[in-house]
Amino acid sequence: MLVALCGGVGAARMLSGLVRVMPPEEITAIVNVGDDMVLHGLHISPDLDTVTYTLAGLDNQETGWGVAGESWNAMDELGRLGGEDWFRLGDRDLATHLFRTGRLRRGETLSEVTADIAERRGIGVRLLPVSDEPVRTRVTLAERTSLGPPGTEVDFQDYFVRLQHNVAVSGVRFEGADTARPAPGVLDALESAEQIVVCPSNPVVSIGPLLAVPGLRETLVAARQRTVAVSPIVAGAALKGPADRLMAELGTESSVVGVARLYSRWVGTLVIDTADRQHIAGVEAEGMRCVVASTVMSSPERASQLARLVIDVVA
Amino acid sequence: MLVALCGGVGAARMLSGLVRVMPPEEITAIVNVGDDMVLHGLHISPDLDTVTYTLAGLDNQETGWGVAGESWNAMDELGRLGGEDWFRLGDRDLATHLFRTGRLRRGETLSEVTADIAERRGIGVRLLPVSDEPVRTRVTLAERTSLGPPGTEVDFQDYFVRLQHNVAVSGVRFEGADTARPAPGVLDALESAEQIVVCPSNPVVSIGPLLAVPGLRETLVAARQRTVAVSPIVAGAALKGPADRLMAELGTESSVVGVARLYSRWVGTLVIDTADRQHIAGVEAEGMRCVVASTVMSSPERASQLARLVIDVVA
Repeated sequence: MLVALCGGVGAARMLSGLVRVMPPEEITAIVNVGDDMVLHGLHISPDLDTVTYTLAGLDNQETGWGVAGESWNAMDELGRLGGEDWFRLGDRDLATHLFRTGRLRRGETLSEVTADIAERRGIGVRLLPVSDEPVRTRVTLAERTSLGPPGTEVDFQDYFVRLQHNVAVSGVRFEGADTARPAPGVLDALESAEQIVVCPSNPVVSIGPLLAVPGLRETLVAARQRTVAVSPIVAGAALKGPADRLMAELGTESSVVGVARLYSRWVGTLVIDTADRQHIAGVEAEGMRCVVASTVMSSPERASQLARLVIDVVA
Repeated sequence: MLVALCGGVGAARMLSGLVRVMPPEEITAIVNVGDDMVLHGLHISPDLDTVTYTLAGLDNQETGWGVAGESWNAMDELGRLGGEDWFRLGDRDLATHLFRTGRLRRGETLSEVTADIAERRGIGVRLLPVSDEPVRTRVTLAERTSLGPPGTEVDFQDYFVRLQHNVAVSGVRFEGADTARPAPGVLDALESAEQIVVCPSNPVVSIGPLLAVPGLRETLVAARQRTVAVSPIVAGAALKGPADRLMAELGTESSVVGVARLYSRWVGTLVIDTADRQHIAGVEAEGMRCVVASTVMSSPERASQLARLVIDVVA
């Protein structure tokens, strides 16, 4: 059994590689919910949806989010009505949020609804939100924006989508994390996993919220030798999103060595890209084993190759 | 100033006639919310929406509900997901529910959101939900259905849409009505109205919930001489929907005389269709003034003619 710690796009690619080289039923994905939001009354779980759509072959590869072949009639009409349309919910994507929200309102948990959606989408991987309780990433902005003066704290999606993460950050916290319980199965999966893979997701705002849920960090520390991370930083930059800037702004250098510093306590092995081979010694100096590979999953084949390597590294 | 008591389609037609013969700003529509529901977490107000779409010229005249030129991508996807798709929410229509639900969750009242939507849709008529608090029509079924044995009580939309009102009813009640307060402006509008028009809506489940809100009936009784109703029953049958069967099942004959019996305490004048002229004496025997006219609003011109007559009747 393999457990993958997941954010959104990078994790979805890693998982799509893993399911090509091992039985999907042997994979448990523990997914970030810090990006979740309630918008227009709908419960939106962007990372769970990105993983689900990708594994179901429904992902929109052009945008990197949402559903392929999407239409935008609801959002266009909401725009005509002068409503809040900065978070673009496609018509087909809306179906997922309607389904999830209806179920949650009837008293089901997020993990129950997530499992049901995964089954209905024909996904063999077991998907677990890290918690059924709200964990919400809140971001303190270091600059003045349309949302307020420097020091204003905003929801993650306000930072990420509304402001297009085009603003410096002075702090990140995970509201609710201190009292959130791991979703059923999360700790068991980590404890019994033969391998734990930290997907190339944002260390601060994708992996960070997972570690903030009580019990996760200790369990991961105990599993350190079985755990391998793929660096989301390649040649000093994030392949996608603001991981590099967030790391720098919050005091960690934006490099594979910076990733090693964030992960070394609970991850035994870091896979870095060939572009970063000059940093092997730096990573090892943080007490981690360092493996160099081609980590940019620009095609399904490359994702499979990386998945194979990641499995072999720990086995 | 004129106040119209409104359900959905019949009221929307009456209003579209009224706005052609008098300034829309002089009309206040008090609208039923007994059909409202929360579905997929969204607050849906079918009668308010039907009235709004019709007055904005967005109504789908083929279906009699929803938005013209609608698409169904969200519902189709929800169907593929195996979700609850019996209540068909079009993509453009969804924008209204998203907008309303988001605002309600931020603490605005239904009447505030309704006024805002009306303004954004360019509607001159003042739209007031009868109450900002939940009033929910619940229907007791007299027959076995997919929803349960005889005697099962269901939400209005379960009866109306899910079962296509193709089932006998043994009771109707308006949950929450006894503690609901009239929305701000409702009683004032009724008290100061020069004319009150009861639109040709379902007496049981459209006008019934209005009367069930404390204060409405007494205020209407006091305004009886200024109040005129258009019969929704023509030649013994409802033009649309189950009004005729509901009346019969709940003990009132399905005729203009039956309508007169339901309304005579608080409505001074009943307008009946020429097809019912043989019932003039029967209506008058209930203590109401009876006016015969062509009441079927099969075209904008006929709606205008009826509107003109209704205004003249009380003036």
